[in-house]
Amino acid sequence: MSRYVDLNVDAGESFGRYRIGREEELFKYVTSANIACGYHAGDPNVMRYTIRLAKKLGVEVGAHPGFPDLMGFGRRAMEIRKDELENYVLYQVGALYGMAKAEGIELQHVKPHGALYNMAWVRTDYAEAVVAAINLFNPELILIAPYGSRMHEVADKWGIKVAFEYFADRNYRSDGKLVPRNLPQALVLDVEEATERALRAVSEGKVKSVEGVDIEVIINTICIHGDSPHAIELAMSIRRRFAEAGIGIKPLKVFVR
Amino acid sequence: MSRYVDLNVDAGESFGRYRIGREEELFKYVTSANIACGYHAGDPNVMRYTIRLAKKLGVEVGAHPGFPDLMGFGRRAMEIRKDELENYVLYQVGALYGMAKAEGIELQHVKPHGALYNMAWVRTDYAEAVVAAINLFNPELILIAPYGSRMHEVADKWGIKVAFEYFADRNYRSDGKLVPRNLPQALVLDVEEATERALRAVSEGKVKSVEGVDIEVIINTICIHGDSPHAIELAMSIRRRFAEAGIGIKPLKVFVR
Amino acid sequence: MSRYVDLNVDAGESFGRYRIGREEELFKYVTSANIACGYHAGDPNVMRYTIRLAKKLGVEVGAHPGFPDLMGFGRRAMEIRKDELENYVLYQVGALYGMAKAEGIELQHVKPHGALYNMAWVRTDYAEAVVAAINLFNPELILIAPYGSRMHEVADKWGIKVAFEYFADRNYRSDGKLVPRNLPQALVLDVEEATERALRAVSEGKVKSVEGVDIEVIINTICIHGDSPHAIELAMSIRRRFAEAGIGIKPLKVFVR
Amino acid sequence: MSRYVDLNVDAGESFGRYRIGREEELFKYVTSANIACGYHAGDPNVMRYTIRLAKKLGVEVGAHPGFPDLMGFGRRAMEIRKDELENYVLYQVGALYGMAKAEGIELQHVKPHGALYNMAWVRTDYAEAVVAAINLFNPELILIAPYGSRMHEVADKWGIKVAFEYFADRNYRSDGKLVPRNLPQALVLDVEEATERALRAVSEGKVKSVEGVDIEVIINTICIHGDSPHAIELAMSIRRRFAEAGIGIKPLKVFVR
Repeated sequence: MSRYVDLNVDAGESFGRYRIGREEELFKYVTSANIACGYHAGDPNVMRYTIRLAKKLGVEVGAHPGFPDLMGFGRRAMEIRKDELENYVLYQVGALYGMAKAEGIELQHVKPHGALYNMAWVRTDYAEAVVAAINLFNPELILIAPYGSRMHEVADKWGIKVAFEYFADRNYRSDGKLVPRNLPQALVLDVEEATERALRAVSEGKVKSVEGVDIEVIINTICIHGDSPHAIELAMSIRRRFAEAGIGIKPLKVFVR
Repeated sequence: MSRYVDLNVDAGESFGRYRIGREEELFKYVTSANIACGYHAGDPNVMRYTIRLAKKLGVEVGAHPGFPDLMGFGRRAMEIRKDELENYVLYQVGALYGMAKAEGIELQHVKPHGALYNMAWVRTDYAEAVVAAINLFNPELILIAPYGSRMHEVADKWGIKVAFEYFADRNYRSDGKLVPRNLPQALVLDVEEATERALRAVSEGKVKSVEGVDIEVIINTICIHGDSPHAIELAMSIRRRFAEAGIGIKPLKVFVR
Repeated sequence: MSRYVDLNVDAGESFGRYRIGREEELFKYVTSANIACGYHAGDPNVMRYTIRLAKKLGVEVGAHPGFPDLMGFGRRAMEIRKDELENYVLYQVGALYGMAKAEGIELQHVKPHGALYNMAWVRTDYAEAVVAAINLFNPELILIAPYGSRMHEVADKWGIKVAFEYFADRNYRSDGKLVPRNLPQALVLDVEEATERALRAVSEGKVKSVEGVDIEVIINTICIHGDSPHAIELAMSIRRRFAEAGIGIKPLKVFVR
Repeated sequence: MSRYVDLNVDAGESFGRYRIGREEELFKYVTSANIACGYHAGDPNVMRYTIRLAKKLGVEVGAHPGFPDLMGFGRRAMEIRKDELENYVLYQVGALYGMAKAEGIELQHVKPHGALYNMAWVRTDYAEAVVAAINLFNPELILIAPYGSRMHEVADKWGIKVAFEYFADRNYRSDGKLVPRNLPQALVLDVEEATERALRAVSEGKVKSVEGVDIEVIINTICIHGDSPHAIELAMSIRRRFAEAGIGIKPLKVFVR
């Protein structure tokens, strides 16, 4: 059983005059922030602001690279050659590093965004592009990825640390993938249920799929979706329940080796 | 009299399928390359390729940040708030750093591009944004800027190293600025004349303006415009003539303190 | 005294997943909508949606072209050559025309956005670019511009119809320009005061400047800023008060010749 | 047997300072130009210039809409919802219409670009998006598409005119698709062979596949790739040979019903 778990949230997804997210509130409850890097969302001012906020509120930061598709918020599949994708990730991680450097803090991790995350979950070429970028930029960065994903496999092979992620507000299929958002059972809306499922995933390594089967997982970090209406409530509920269960909420760097 | 001078060239200004520049040839003759960072030109693949080429041919690399205006190639004046501009520069320098890190090399310098260079030449707020970004990211980076410019002043005040730049194919006004490109006297087209003027600028610290007045300058680096028809010829001519004059052609990091 | 006035609002300024504006509410109160065209804001889906909404709620539509600067929301000055600017406006008006055509409606007007509006207010080259684009695309389109502006002058000279615009929530200087947003007196926050000032501007052609001088104006349309907290209240107040005063609220095409 | 055929070329694919294409030469030999609309390539200045050139040299123009992916030149598959894709096409066709209107000419056709063309060849949703956009904007516009493609089917069903396209420099598979560019047999490099194959395709409606099977086709327009080294030579050769064979080279609008 894990003694620790991390709470992560996507952040810095505003752009220019456009605002998305509630970092000011959410950063009080999470331990790690995945900061958009200007491709699917975010701009240099938003990145700098978000890093400052994370620093002030004691949240660890990582890069949240995505596809070059602001109009689609990085949520649309794109066919990109592996070497080009590696460079897109390097570019974005480097850009965020620049901002973190300016604020005197270190990057902790990398978590791909949206369609990149989903494609690198199942495609070796996309997984290799992401892992290669981390390996080249800084092999100490932790990759946030699903347990059993291609990213997991590739990172293991290359010796890159992985933090396995659980989506607290989502239902899973028996193959370990998420129920797609457009299906009725996609979401776990009840906060208490979501909390208990998350606790079981972390402490017992088991997630009940929508088909009723137990999937075996290892979980190091729980994703709180900032745009969910229950985000704050869920984060608070998880913090309370995990404390009772003796599981510490700590940033990845404290316990992921 | 200077014992050394650097030859710099703007590079990595291709984008996607679009090609600009002759780095493969020019990198044989120059000592420093200013690499576009994806705002006014360049993309992650172009950046990576250009850094690899520089590494292979022994050319030092620096960031060439510009305005976020690909359609105008960063050559159009834009009014940008100082804190935002600082972040734009940080973003671009960081992104290029990511690429250099992947190739195991260090950045040597920063040279603003186009309208950003021209505005930071004369405006304190723009100069401060550029210098602040360098200071925050890595105060050992050398700023390439005109002698007597606002960038020069601000860098001196903040203790950032400056390499003073001379444009070998351009005529100067008595106030030390370039004759604008749209005026007939803008260019020095004759290679021999351009070479002798460059030698005088470096060795005697004097440039004859179009009004016939000698301007006092210090010159550490000579810019070769890759899109000039005589670029290679000029670089070769400068190398030959400077060797005769006992002035070494070396990258900035060798001699700029 | 005018018998009619138009109420206009900027619209369609969302982008991708990003939302700005309250068209669903505001379109109940206004007669004309200025729809962003994908340069400073807006995307094809937002444009189509906004045009459908305008059609459904009986609001006339016009193009709201801006600078190619999504990151700055078209609010930053850019130096653009006149012929290029003309093409940028043509491009955006054409794109919006495509959307309107798909919905079976006609464009009524063109109102430049943000920094383009402000620069074309005072610079002849920018004003000429805007008016030339209208003249080439469809000389029956009405230009929304300030009374006494360069756009007014150029449109008059070229025989393009102009609707003179009043900003109900802004204070004016004695030279007829707006008090800049960063100054304390920029805004007229009191709804009743704003309503009475608007009525006086339309019915008497007089606006009291912050210096206490009466400026002479002609006003055909009143801009309601959708992002103002009092937008709906102000629109309702103007509708009520103008009805009492016997001034009809009608779209520009009804009364601008 | 067809009495006429059209020669088309992709055009207006430069962007900002970046140059691609040889319209000045090629427009002397072709009858129709597919002009990029600012998404995968092209910008308002390039579009205007290209339309002027086409007008001057008597070439008919059409829209060449692509994916919003300048970095990938519209050559990468993207998953886009049908309604959004319809709007992207409308936007681009409208924008080009604006430019054509300014020059007093009419659009003749629409030819999707790159990955959009390839996906709409085989996917009904993409084909429907393209045809719907044409139908809504102007149902008299001719769609350039492959014989037997989904675009062909959908256009037929909706009553939109289609011009069937043959790629003179490409080899075909027995299923009627092109041999992918990355395979060795992709290209027909010999000008004489390419000419004879094109003549047979147009006059007999037969194309020999790489597997040696004759495919049945109808051909109304032959694509000349401007970036092919033999483009001009091939266009001249086709003109000469087709004249001998009594087939007129005419723009689509002359003969496509």
